[in-house]
Amino acid sequence: MNAERSSSELRRAPALDVVEWFNTPVPISIDELRGRVVVLHAFQMLCPGCVLSGTPLAQRIHDRLAGPDLVVIAVHTVFEHHEAMTPVSLAAHLHEFRITMPVAVDRHPEPGGAPATMTAYAMRGTPTLVVVDRAGRIRHHLFGAVDELELGVALGRLLAEPAPTDQS
Amino acid sequence: MNAERSSSELRRAPALDVVEWFNTPVPISIDELRGRVVVLHAFQMLCPGCVLSGTPLAQRIHDRLAGPDLVVIAVHTVFEHHEAMTPVSLAAHLHEFRITMPVAVDRHPEPGGAPATMTAYAMRGTPTLVVVDRAGRIRHHLFGAVDELELGVALGRLLAEPAPTDQS
Amino acid sequence: MNAERSSSELRRAPALDVVEWFNTPVPISIDELRGRVVVLHAFQMLCPGCVLSGTPLAQRIHDRLAGPDLVVIAVHTVFEHHEAMTPVSLAAHLHEFRITMPVAVDRHPEPGGAPATMTAYAMRGTPTLVVVDRAGRIRHHLFGAVDELELGVALGRLLAEPAPTDQS
Amino acid sequence: MNAERSSSELRRAPALDVVEWFNTPVPISIDELRGRVVVLHAFQMLCPGCVLSGTPLAQRIHDRLAGPDLVVIAVHTVFEHHEAMTPVSLAAHLHEFRITMPVAVDRHPEPGGAPATMTAYAMRGTPTLVVVDRAGRIRHHLFGAVDELELGVALGRLLAEPAPTDQS
Repeated sequence: MNAERSSSELRRAPALDVVEWFNTPVPISIDELRGRVVVLHAFQMLCPGCVLSGTPLAQRIHDRLAGPDLVVIAVHTVFEHHEAMTPVSLAAHLHEFRITMPVAVDRHPEPGGAPATMTAYAMRGTPTLVVVDRAGRIRHHLFGAVDELELGVALGRLLAEPAPTDQS
Repeated sequence: MNAERSSSELRRAPALDVVEWFNTPVPISIDELRGRVVVLHAFQMLCPGCVLSGTPLAQRIHDRLAGPDLVVIAVHTVFEHHEAMTPVSLAAHLHEFRITMPVAVDRHPEPGGAPATMTAYAMRGTPTLVVVDRAGRIRHHLFGAVDELELGVALGRLLAEPAPTDQS
Repeated sequence: MNAERSSSELRRAPALDVVEWFNTPVPISIDELRGRVVVLHAFQMLCPGCVLSGTPLAQRIHDRLAGPDLVVIAVHTVFEHHEAMTPVSLAAHLHEFRITMPVAVDRHPEPGGAPATMTAYAMRGTPTLVVVDRAGRIRHHLFGAVDELELGVALGRLLAEPAPTDQS
Repeated sequence: MNAERSSSELRRAPALDVVEWFNTPVPISIDELRGRVVVLHAFQMLCPGCVLSGTPLAQRIHDRLAGPDLVVIAVHTVFEHHEAMTPVSLAAHLHEFRITMPVAVDRHPEPGGAPATMTAYAMRGTPTLVVVDRAGRIRHHLFGAVDELELGVALGRLLAEPAPTDQS
């Protein structure tokens, strides 16, 4: 929660470069979410830290806070065991663990490498939680275990910020 | 977290009517904390919901968030088993559980009844968490188990509010 | 733990009808384990009750109790989401969750149905824990959550039984 | 669980040298429990390791295993904060935490020192779990955190031992 920079340095959240969506009737664009706080949860379905901690937390943020002011999007950023974590397996995982938040499947520019969205966000691994403010700028980038109280405070502060005007 | 009222209805936080303090060199006055968010944790040292959940959470808020903008104060509001929860016993409890946040001992107007601060805040039992905004008004009053994520969001929102001017 | 029957009624543990093994240099035969207590853990890699509770417990039994007197064997008994839980996916799961106990892959007599060992043991779902005594007889068959203390007592009692003589 | 000695070395469990009992109509004598496995839980009501872990475990052993073959006895062995942990406070603690197993209050030969039963058993602190076999001999002496699975196995093994004959 200490990684805040001055506003002028803040990086705009890159577009989601993904190939498939679950739990949403239409693809979701980060740009179209301007005005809302966006919580991105990057995960792999067989990553223990995701299954045991990161994904349940993201789902709870979705259950308790998602609405006109906040959106949670999970991105399946597979960078290892590619054959074990196909979209078919992911669908079964989402069903079994009752994951209802929107989930995107990251795109692989070439077989076996790191996927496109993971690279665009410079993520180091999974789980990673990225929080984007109402103006579309990355405000928090958290790798690994997250303190729930501190995350809540960070989200509360961002929710209290005014939505940007059209020109921002 | 749903108990917000319009600002005009908000009740000013009553003074702490207490007889003894631990973990602070001088008594703390709610009035003097104007400008800061105040988290009040009402507890009894032998209440299981306090020992197992409420008090550790209050202590963690103290550890992670206490500073120029937020203060945590615990109040020992004994309303049962009075002889078992004297200040001598409380001191041992604080020592054993490594509780370092400021702790006040609620005053009993008459033996055996509900204590003064608990009554002034209309608390129903322990643990109770009361959150006071920078302007000294009660914004949240939570009895029993508290969702940590939602509490964090509520605190983040209050921390984002401007401090009152002298006339407020 | 209440399902004990008189010895004359006890059922002999069926053979493991499986197609592949992980974490063991050679296939394991229930019959050849006569003289040892055998703990069978039937699971599916995407079953939440397995991932969060049953499989970690089986692995801990393996870590703490496996030896000359007790063997833990996990059996991957896939009866749903077959395409999502192939041996390739299972290998990644075992690697990621650091599962080191022997794991067998149950055999499917026909595509899409219940697998052979699961059927032979009349298992209702996953996780299922079956405990076989030193004489090769099923003594406990537990579906779902298991109380660790009671399971320990049951294992301690079986470990205290003498190994069968050759003629038993 | 590794502290087993050969039977000839095993120490007979000393008598409980206590001054008061809760949760039992009559005092309990270790000697009169010959033939049963006895689990002794030494604790202090304000010791965090007791409140959070040791006492709930002892109570669960009582709930699940107490009967003709096994008895659980808690002993309040106060060796610090004496004024904070009087029998009056203990009574409130037992009530609040719904502790229903028999509880004895250890005797203090002199004010402020270690209590008699704690000394007789050479306990180092709280929580301590002592397991006595059917023949009245100490078989396990565990200080601090206890692995529930391993404790269960140890109890299962002792429960499988025959009761001593009258002359043992």
